[in-house]
Amino acid sequence: MKTLVFGHKNPDTDTITSAIVYASLKQQMGLDAEAIRLGEVNGETAYALEYFNVEAPRFVERVAEEAKDVILVDHNEPLQSANDIDQVRIVEVVDHHRISGFQTAEPLYYRAEPVGCTATILNKLFKEHGVEVSKVNAGLMLSAIISDSLLFQSPTCTEEDKAAAAELAAIAEVDVNEYGLAMLKAGASLAGKTAKELISIDAKEFSMGVHRVEIAQINTVDVQEVLALRSELLAEMTTSVSEKNLDLFLLVITDIIKSDSTGLVLGLSEDKAAKAFEQNIIDQVIPLPGVVSRKKQVVPVLTEVLG
Amino acid sequence: MKTLVFGHKNPDTDTITSAIVYASLKQQMGLDAEAIRLGEVNGETAYALEYFNVEAPRFVERVAEEAKDVILVDHNEPLQSANDIDQVRIVEVVDHHRISGFQTAEPLYYRAEPVGCTATILNKLFKEHGVEVSKVNAGLMLSAIISDSLLFQSPTCTEEDKAAAAELAAIAEVDVNEYGLAMLKAGASLAGKTAKELISIDAKEFSMGVHRVEIAQINTVDVQEVLALRSELLAEMTTSVSEKNLDLFLLVITDIIKSDSTGLVLGLSEDKAAKAFEQNIIDQVIPLPGVVSRKKQVVPVLTEVLG
Ligand SMILES: [Mn+2]
Ligand SMILES: [Mn+2]
Repeated sequence: MKTLVFGHKNPDTDTITSAIVYASLKQQMGLDAEAIRLGEVNGETAYALEYFNVEAPRFVERVAEEAKDVILVDHNEPLQSANDIDQVRIVEVVDHHRISGFQTAEPLYYRAEPVGCTATILNKLFKEHGVEVSKVNAGLMLSAIISDSLLFQSPTCTEEDKAAAAELAAIAEVDVNEYGLAMLKAGASLAGKTAKELISIDAKEFSMGVHRVEIAQINTVDVQEVLALRSELLAEMTTSVSEKNLDLFLLVITDIIKSDSTGLVLGLSEDKAAKAFEQNIIDQVIPLPGVVSRKKQVVPVLTEVLG
Repeated sequence: MKTLVFGHKNPDTDTITSAIVYASLKQQMGLDAEAIRLGEVNGETAYALEYFNVEAPRFVERVAEEAKDVILVDHNEPLQSANDIDQVRIVEVVDHHRISGFQTAEPLYYRAEPVGCTATILNKLFKEHGVEVSKVNAGLMLSAIISDSLLFQSPTCTEEDKAAAAELAAIAEVDVNEYGLAMLKAGASLAGKTAKELISIDAKEFSMGVHRVEIAQINTVDVQEVLALRSELLAEMTTSVSEKNLDLFLLVITDIIKSDSTGLVLGLSEDKAAKAFEQNIIDQVIPLPGVVSRKKQVVPVLTEVLG
């Protein structure tokens, strides 16, 4: 029986490419591993996959129907994983996020580092196991680092991420800035997307104490273009809040050029969000100056107040 | 401010030596780290420390009074950690147990592998960071592997543990079998110990679903000698059950020569324990044939029924 390798729901480039690359490393080490995905491939990731001529992993809804053992990359929180994650055995995790709600009955391999991207850890694992990085795998890992670090601008980006990216760019034979900007722009193109699509491209659910919080992020080069859809976005967020019983829905609209964000916020805990960020909410809009990283600048701040 | 490095309560040899050795590695990497302990050093560990001429780490009850950042070795479950663990920031974990109840607000360095001993992972970390292993550190890591694997007899022992032990024995310049047996015998000497001491030498608390379970282990060369104290042991276990509100207390008495165990079991969930091990409990005694590893042969079996 195959071991399935997958990242989080509403997959981003790191989640998709890390699943592909880690499955490839495990295969080269003799394990019958297959990368799968839990959701749609976004525009940015599609650009990277096409550029390096790699097929997207297969979509799987219920992992327990296909596997006993699974490997998680780029996430660990059950709310962000397969709906039936409690019915399989998690044998490995490679991740760079906080650990929350994660539980196993037996010892496992867990590798987390506080770096900007899962791919930076994967690049180390190739070395530790003495496996050479192929051109395609290098290109995919590079894409993940560019994506998670917003081309090295995010505060989550470490020297290790930069060094890994430089190494991988040499193997992949691409110009980091040129390729990176083109890839980010492919993801930032919001043309033709509905409000419902916009709030779910990059959405993650978190449990913070007794609260259930959804934080979605949109990368754009034109925040006003997104805010023009304010009422439609809020309507979709309202639906999500009631359907998923959320205490808070925060949509972070990030200007990838200015490295700045504006939030739309909704839910019973919205005054706590105001308190957390020390900002006033006016017409559901909350300024998030200097914020570009959900992981480093949003989740810990909200957890402090809600957790 | 120092970063404190420590293992679990009721420390065993792996917990004490891993704290010492990892603090030493971190110091050599430039971090102001100090190993501490959360409980008494047992007879086996004392033998190892004396043999390699190392002082026991300092006892600390409340870690938050001394540190902001801490590093956990050989455990992750809050019930087994410092009582005020929720008041400090866990920046690293190096462990080889299941993950349960562990929670952080921020990303961290987490290194777990399903090997028999924390020291086996530490031995890798020295190599990954290019730091040489001193004779003393080698002796301490070797002691941990011998202890956790019961001189390579435990089912938790992997080829990696054996290889690490052979490497470390060469650096430490000791004969593994001769040193190992002497060390284990030092720990298995129960002479002069009260029933209360016996049930707490190597006790760990676990949360399994809604249940609170304590599993203590005694290594001995004479199970009957321990069972002769049956009523005193049960009296102390009864006190523990009511004081800590336990659903189950299981005392595993392990014959380190025959690699076999006998359990004393107490609490509202004792019939569930009988079901879990498919054994009858007679006069609070449960046969545990072939069991030597709490981690691999006790915790998962009980979690299956109680979790
Ligand atoms: Mn990521
Ligand atoms: Mn251990």
